[in-house]
Amino acid sequence: MDKDRLDPWGEGFIGSYERLHNEFGIERLDALIPRFKRPSLHIARKIDFGHRDLGRVLDAIDNDKPYAVMSGIKPSGDFHLGTKMTADDMIYFQSLSKRSKVYYCIADVEAYNDNGLSFAESSKTAVRNVADILALGLDPERAVVYKQSEEIRVMRLSTIFSSSVTNNMLKAIYGERRIGLYLSALIQAGDILMPQLPEFGGPKPVLVPVGADQDPHIRLTRDLANAYRSDFGFIPPSSIYHRLNRGLDGGPKMSKRVPGSSFTLDEAPASAVKTTLASFTGGRPTVEEQRRLGGEADKCPIYDLYLFHFALEDEYAKRVYDECYGGIRMCGECKQELAKIVKGYLEEHRRRRESLMKDAEELLAKSRKALAAAR
Amino acid sequence: MDKDRLDPWGEGFIGSYERLHNEFGIERLDALIPRFKRPSLHIARKIDFGHRDLGRVLDAIDNDKPYAVMSGIKPSGDFHLGTKMTADDMIYFQSLSKRSKVYYCIADVEAYNDNGLSFAESSKTAVRNVADILALGLDPERAVVYKQSEEIRVMRLSTIFSSSVTNNMLKAIYGERRIGLYLSALIQAGDILMPQLPEFGGPKPVLVPVGADQDPHIRLTRDLANAYRSDFGFIPPSSIYHRLNRGLDGGPKMSKRVPGSSFTLDEAPASAVKTTLASFTGGRPTVEEQRRLGGEADKCPIYDLYLFHFALEDEYAKRVYDECYGGIRMCGECKQELAKIVKGYLEEHRRRRESLMKDAEELLAKSRKALAAAR
Repeated sequence: MDKDRLDPWGEGFIGSYERLHNEFGIERLDALIPRFKRPSLHIARKIDFGHRDLGRVLDAIDNDKPYAVMSGIKPSGDFHLGTKMTADDMIYFQSLSKRSKVYYCIADVEAYNDNGLSFAESSKTAVRNVADILALGLDPERAVVYKQSEEIRVMRLSTIFSSSVTNNMLKAIYGERRIGLYLSALIQAGDILMPQLPEFGGPKPVLVPVGADQDPHIRLTRDLANAYRSDFGFIPPSSIYHRLNRGLDGGPKMSKRVPGSSFTLDEAPASAVKTTLASFTGGRPTVEEQRRLGGEADKCPIYDLYLFHFALEDEYAKRVYDECYGGIRMCGECKQELAKIVKGYLEEHRRRRESLMKDAEELLAKSRKALAAAR
Repeated sequence: MDKDRLDPWGEGFIGSYERLHNEFGIERLDALIPRFKRPSLHIARKIDFGHRDLGRVLDAIDNDKPYAVMSGIKPSGDFHLGTKMTADDMIYFQSLSKRSKVYYCIADVEAYNDNGLSFAESSKTAVRNVADILALGLDPERAVVYKQSEEIRVMRLSTIFSSSVTNNMLKAIYGERRIGLYLSALIQAGDILMPQLPEFGGPKPVLVPVGADQDPHIRLTRDLANAYRSDFGFIPPSSIYHRLNRGLDGGPKMSKRVPGSSFTLDEAPASAVKTTLASFTGGRPTVEEQRRLGGEADKCPIYDLYLFHFALEDEYAKRVYDECYGGIRMCGECKQELAKIVKGYLEEHRRRRESLMKDAEELLAKSRKALAAAR
């Protein structure tokens, strides 16, 4: 792998988060934190660590101006915890103003390309995925959900972009890749810029919450927004970056492609419990050493789960952290404790999702109608 | 330029037509000519010289089975004589059976990309372009006209294809090109394969009449049809190749991009007359030499015009040819003679087109409705 570039299709190699500021120009979030009246868990805990032009979105919020929040999911399986990270940010930024609007993309073309899923299969998964984000708190009143395979505007934009983007520009951002990946990057740029088309109210700030390794897509899209400003009036999209949830398998991130790296929100609680208990940790080789030296929560995917998702009280998260480094908390019991929370969470999430399946279908139908009418 | 490859976006360099059979495997048309009850002017005069799998289409005609004829136009200007070549073949093959159906693509995405034309501008040109093909004889009852920018199926197919096509495959066919050109090739493959989707009756023979330099697109599309046979049941499309109408400027082909290389069917007759009279010819440097050695009709774009378009009687075309080589016919008078025919033709064509503008709009509206219903 090319260590000089971030690979949005890769295993989540980042190097260090520091490097993202110094080498790639992602701005630090710290200076903006005072602007949040009630910072989200991700922001307060510095899980969200960087941004590009987030100030523009905060200005819109402060001045009661419209803005969009754009995200999506590849319906190649169920919602896993990595996807939840992005969804949590999206939902938080939707909640900050009545002028927000979420654009959520069901990336079924990519699911076909990468996973061989038919559009019909994707369609079924999509309903469950939408129910998942509703269960996480999305307000359906200010959201549009669309399928990539049905949104001619996205395709049109990506084709338009392909005419001006040079191979060198793509190679500089992504390295030498298959044309299919280049095209999928251009389609994502279309997804991100669509909310600024005239039929959706024209140019406006758009926020894209992403994992740190997805920055290449943001850079490409910002370049394209500038290149097509005179044609479309595009404002370069803003982004906010969250740290990657380490894989439970010990890899750098959770991935649908890596079994055992995560569990999904749809998984049977017993199975998620098993994955949790089997997880890699930041523990020492022996109990004796761990008592003596303490564990390493900062390298531990189990601690990530506490911090990013399941220890909602700051005090609780801090206690887990301190007990780990203090050599008081052993990995076995720590995982058992988490597994219990996970089980309860998944049971509750499933209940909520099941009760929202009809709402998900309605949101999809309503969105389709609204998109067809917006010409 | 890379002389080992054909360049569908280039100036029409072919080398020799012989080479297309030997190096690129385009089959000779000769063996199939007896199968035509009333061969078209292009076929009878060997202007159509080659094909791939045309037998499959002729079988469909003989057995009263459905087949499609696919072509299109980039609405970046008016119909010129090079476009007419393809349209003539398309209309001829439509006329051979009641089971035929024409799919005609208005390539407005390419017009935007290559020429900066807005979709609204393209839309206006499109109506006139469609009136042109109606005036040339298209039967609107068995034709569907669509805009590339509105046909999600084409976009979907091209995206799907992009996932499996390798950079090496594209480089082998097209050489190292901009990603935008690769994508436009994949979109054309989508255009050509769309008529075989289930909503259009499923797999069937599809004929694509093209100029000789467009074979790379055919090869790519045939490769993709084979690659996706198990998913879609695609039958590799058939093709028929016509010789390129030499440019009146002395270049290898007529092109919208080369002023003076052609005139359009929409041009004021006086202007087309001027272009004709200014044309490069296969004549000798002096009248004396031409009387002594004869002209060279085989190298003359003016003779191409007689042969390909305007000398409808074989006897007349033969007389022009013989008088040229016999040193009897001088270029000046030959051009004057042609200019008179051109003038009459354009006046008549314009009358017919104007009377068909409403029909063109109706065909576009009817097609849009049919395409929206075909889901």
